[in-house]
Amino acid sequence: MRVLIVFAHPEPRSFNGALKDLAAETLIAAGHEVKVSDLYAAKFGAVVGVDDFLCERADPDFFSVAREQTHALKNGAMADEIIAEQNKVIWAELVIFQFPMWWFGMPAILKGWVDRVFARGFAYSAGRKYDTGMMRGRLAMVSATTGTSAETYAPNGIDGDINDILWPIHNGIFRYTGFDVLPPHVAYMPGKISTEERRAYLNCYRRRLIDIDGTPRLFFHPLGDYGDDERLKPGIVVRSGFQRNV
Amino acid sequence: MRVLIVFAHPEPRSFNGALKDLAAETLIAAGHEVKVSDLYAAKFGAVVGVDDFLCERADPDFFSVAREQTHALKNGAMADEIIAEQNKVIWAELVIFQFPMWWFGMPAILKGWVDRVFARGFAYSAGRKYDTGMMRGRLAMVSATTGTSAETYAPNGIDGDINDILWPIHNGIFRYTGFDVLPPHVAYMPGKISTEERRAYLNCYRRRLIDIDGTPRLFFHPLGDYGDDERLKPGIVVRSGFQRNV
Repeated sequence: MRVLIVFAHPEPRSFNGALKDLAAETLIAAGHEVKVSDLYAAKFGAVVGVDDFLCERADPDFFSVAREQTHALKNGAMADEIIAEQNKVIWAELVIFQFPMWWFGMPAILKGWVDRVFARGFAYSAGRKYDTGMMRGRLAMVSATTGTSAETYAPNGIDGDINDILWPIHNGIFRYTGFDVLPPHVAYMPGKISTEERRAYLNCYRRRLIDIDGTPRLFFHPLGDYGDDERLKPGIVVRSGFQRNV
Repeated sequence: MRVLIVFAHPEPRSFNGALKDLAAETLIAAGHEVKVSDLYAAKFGAVVGVDDFLCERADPDFFSVAREQTHALKNGAMADEIIAEQNKVIWAELVIFQFPMWWFGMPAILKGWVDRVFARGFAYSAGRKYDTGMMRGRLAMVSATTGTSAETYAPNGIDGDINDILWPIHNGIFRYTGFDVLPPHVAYMPGKISTEERRAYLNCYRRRLIDIDGTPRLFFHPLGDYGDDERLKPGIVVRSGFQRNV
């Protein structure tokens, strides 16, 4: 399997760095191919802007990100930095986001990678989302660390259920563009636990990576469960864990 | 009231720009003071990194964002761009985030503003989070636009409940740092509706802004509802809409 690890931590010797290195070593040892996009090391630009587009704009007077992305992709005018990342995504059968949870989400440098690389016309377009998204047939996975305990991220924890907090990534980025999604690997507050506990997290992650085929994918309702209004049809019982029957 | 609008859209003439302008005009006409942080116009840096810290690092050999933020704030060594934004936040009694929902969240430039400005030691610190967060006594609010319909963001919609999708901002950023939180104003797919419908959104938003005092705040469980494990105590019935009793 070809695996792209998108790594978003400023310190290579962090636990995020260790998880990234472990994943690369484990996957290569198991016969997979691995590429790493180390966003901090590459000083990857985080902000979608006019500089993403090399040539004449579709509309020089009004800047619409989606319109300019579509236009630039059609005309071979997308910035090289973006094309290089898109080529890695196309190459990959599995994409892993390795990041520390900052403010209940991805570091800005990774959010910006998504904003820029998952361009309209590349990752989605009219009528191409969710089951028909352009990343269909590929796998994606979150590997994250947190600053607080697993208890705070319990369903009745003060931060809220970690799976619900990851929904904007799992459903909103991965599934939206057609990926099948592996359950997340979350290492809780690696900065505050013992060396043994950190080692245990690495061992668990290694086991997860070795058994990708045997790992059940997250469930998302198929398009057929939705009516024309994009709401679940009457009688469909919610099984995503996030949505609610009304 | 002193209001800070943090504006994150690359096109001033976008509907996000119109909402920002309307808010500023409405609030000023009502006797409030307004400052705007226009992140794209300011080319605000989105990425937390070593350049945020002007002087000697707490640990030059291992880059921990939280540690360096705390150290730099104590020693007056935080980058000027960050200090200027922090001063606006301290000045403000209400902070409004005005942004388009990109990938179920904030544009990276706004996420980066949070990553950098809400530094440890400024917005939170040991023992200072949620009810005791350092922004206690202040108000915050999301004003967002979307690319898809309100139906897709219904509780049984394909994208999931908009209020749940905003939890990482409402609870994870605003409430975490002590803000009281106003209900969000969401304008659904302003790019695909009629001029009249856009005007209706502007009118609704104006009414919301004029009646801030009369607008009920979002409910978050007080710290007293949580046990030492930071989970809701037995017998406390979830009222946040996001968490779940287990």
